[in-house]
Amino acid sequence: QINTERLLSFISEMAHIGAKSNGGCNRQALTEEDRLGRELFLTWCHAIGGVSRLDSMGNLFVRFEGTNPTKLPVLMGSHLDTQPSGGNFDGIYGVLAALEVMYTLNDTNQKLVHPVEIVVWSNEEGCRFTPAMSGSGVFSGKLKQSDIYQSVDDQGISYQEALIASAQMGTEECQSFPFSAALELHIEQGPILEAEQKSIGIVTGVQGMNWYQVTVSGETTHAGPTPMLMRKDPVQALMAILPKIYAKVSEYGEQARITIGKLTTIPSSTNTVPEHVIFSLDLRHPTQKVLDSMSKEVLNLCQDIPSIFNSNIEQLWASPAIEFDPRCIDVIRCASTQLNMDAMPIVSGAGHDSVYLSSLGPTGMIFVPCKDGISHNEKEHVEPEHLVSGANVLLHSLILLAEE
Amino acid sequence: QINTERLLSFISEMAHIGAKSNGGCNRQALTEEDRLGRELFLTWCHAIGGVSRLDSMGNLFVRFEGTNPTKLPVLMGSHLDTQPSGGNFDGIYGVLAALEVMYTLNDTNQKLVHPVEIVVWSNEEGCRFTPAMSGSGVFSGKLKQSDIYQSVDDQGISYQEALIASAQMGTEECQSFPFSAALELHIEQGPILEAEQKSIGIVTGVQGMNWYQVTVSGETTHAGPTPMLMRKDPVQALMAILPKIYAKVSEYGEQARITIGKLTTIPSSTNTVPEHVIFSLDLRHPTQKVLDSMSKEVLNLCQDIPSIFNSNIEQLWASPAIEFDPRCIDVIRCASTQLNMDAMPIVSGAGHDSVYLSSLGPTGMIFVPCKDGISHNEKEHVEPEHLVSGANVLLHSLILLAEE
Ligand SMILES: NC(=O)NCCC(=O)O
Ligand SMILES: NC(=O)NCCC(=O)O
Repeated sequence: QINTERLLSFISEMAHIGAKSNGGCNRQALTEEDRLGRELFLTWCHAIGGVSRLDSMGNLFVRFEGTNPTKLPVLMGSHLDTQPSGGNFDGIYGVLAALEVMYTLNDTNQKLVHPVEIVVWSNEEGCRFTPAMSGSGVFSGKLKQSDIYQSVDDQGISYQEALIASAQMGTEECQSFPFSAALELHIEQGPILEAEQKSIGIVTGVQGMNWYQVTVSGETTHAGPTPMLMRKDPVQALMAILPKIYAKVSEYGEQARITIGKLTTIPSSTNTVPEHVIFSLDLRHPTQKVLDSMSKEVLNLCQDIPSIFNSNIEQLWASPAIEFDPRCIDVIRCASTQLNMDAMPIVSGAGHDSVYLSSLGPTGMIFVPCKDGISHNEKEHVEPEHLVSGANVLLHSLILLAEE
Repeated sequence: QINTERLLSFISEMAHIGAKSNGGCNRQALTEEDRLGRELFLTWCHAIGGVSRLDSMGNLFVRFEGTNPTKLPVLMGSHLDTQPSGGNFDGIYGVLAALEVMYTLNDTNQKLVHPVEIVVWSNEEGCRFTPAMSGSGVFSGKLKQSDIYQSVDDQGISYQEALIASAQMGTEECQSFPFSAALELHIEQGPILEAEQKSIGIVTGVQGMNWYQVTVSGETTHAGPTPMLMRKDPVQALMAILPKIYAKVSEYGEQARITIGKLTTIPSSTNTVPEHVIFSLDLRHPTQKVLDSMSKEVLNLCQDIPSIFNSNIEQLWASPAIEFDPRCIDVIRCASTQLNMDAMPIVSGAGHDSVYLSSLGPTGMIFVPCKDGISHNEKEHVEPEHLVSGANVLLHSLILLAEE
């Protein structure tokens, strides 16, 4: 059994770094806050003998040796970066619960057979730098480091510049290494477990997601003297597109999702009809084939506009639907049963570093419920009892995997 | 008759400062480019004996003495700042044509009875700092200097800070002084003169304009796991508002205008449903009463949204419809007749510094046509023959007013 007080105090101490007045956290990837958060985490790791290393994507690994040096490590990872409107649990909980698991083993001087590595993946959120999960993505070979290095934030700072500025540029090259299994504990970020009154979700897979940037272009002109009928106002094109794409996605049923998180005009001047309206599209569905056809239809609608306008679409990211390793799923189910937890299988609606890890080796995820299913919001809340249950399932799953 | 070559070379030399690759200009108020443009202008003024002074709003006055020191000055003013998507004529033409008029008088050593002051009003465009026409607005007493000083640009830099940084903070307090008349020559920025094949517009008045900032608020949540029906997505509220407000304005007929120049989401993150959608509203109509009722209806529609959303409206600016001085109108008509110009009366769709000047003393405006009515766009173009016609009408109007 993990130590409840210590786990909660890890979480509440970390929440001070980048704390917002409304209770949430803004500790975006590769900022000074991110650096401070990782520094605090490392202090805790070093205190129980963890040995850390950093790679060229800013992924942070902390190794705890096992009794058999020929065995491959078990990874327990998640992320410490947050959304601009972030809470105190998304990602953070997975990292700090892994830390608490190692503290618990350390309390009783228990050494596992396999070595264990806690991993803090870089830029999981994808809000400052597109796409999400870029640290684990490059690690897995599915994303190219040179592409990500060039990704720029809204201030024009590149990923590579931010890595250096935040002292997170490691000396090791970012590349995968063999591991025996990878576990990630995370909050659900959705309403299902709470509605079903379960304390543990055994994650069977992750839905597919496609990110696009759509630019609708018209022509700038003066807001005063230009008659409405002479305008090529891209806001009017947007107003025709929006209802059609939301309606299209709803035709795909309850499991389909569409989000326009970024929306902006260029130039942004009150008395000038804009030349461009630019918006992001985040489309998701648990079934890859459905996601593909839905995406195609939505993009067609974004281009189905009067010929006075131009529409340009760039795909920013595609993370196909995946399924987790059956053995890891079994291990998590078994740990939940051992602990007498109410558990259920669940498909993740959010992307996680485990998606990329699952392409390299046996990977599994554990979910706990969060209040009202709210995440990416300062109100994000998880009941302490669930935090403890999840950490205990992580501990027992780790023992099952690392004692083999 | 003014010197065509010299006028065109003033305009083309000024166009180099803040030049964009597509032929336009980005020389926004109180930037380094604005400072350089004013410096160039001052070199030209000083060469023919103009004496300059700067006030606490960054308004720049260049005085040329007349033969009778007891007479009040005639002002000829406009602005040198541009939109981010600015052309080479909006405002600039009025200032540089006034300069050419003084050069022409200087060529023949002609002294007028009244002193003349060329005025470069600060931040006319209102794109960097809200509202527009703020230099002349404070000069007229209709806007408060302390309010404008606090206006911030998108980078969070205040008007006051920008005044100092661009070395445009003058030692004189910004306040009005008596003048015998004020003239402004400007491009029409609309399609009427071109359609009517006139080379001169005798501006009888300026339509009314209201600026608002509308914030529609929902709740941030995760783009993946959150079911569509659980969302409070302000983009969906926006999508319902937009068609209603455009339709409402079109009910007010051809003369009514609505422009959404700024539109943005907060936080701006691809995988987060935004909390806020913020947009600017620029509403215009030549008849103040009609503008008032139209504005009220549009704002009501912005608030008529499902109760899961909040809507907040801030009025940023109101510039009521005005009429110009009958004597100035007569003088411009007379000058056009003397010069055998095809002239017509016209109401301005754009706001101008003359709106605020007209509350202080006799004020008049001269328009020339611009190609396809396009302005606030790098393509903005005015035929040289029209540039020359306008400057000659300005010269002759000035002589009529300053010889009295
Ligand atoms: N867990 C999480 O918020 N991940 C970000 C990637 C996504 O957009 O799903
Ligand atoms: N002339 C001009 O573009 N003025 C800006 C004020 C307005 O928005 O009309």
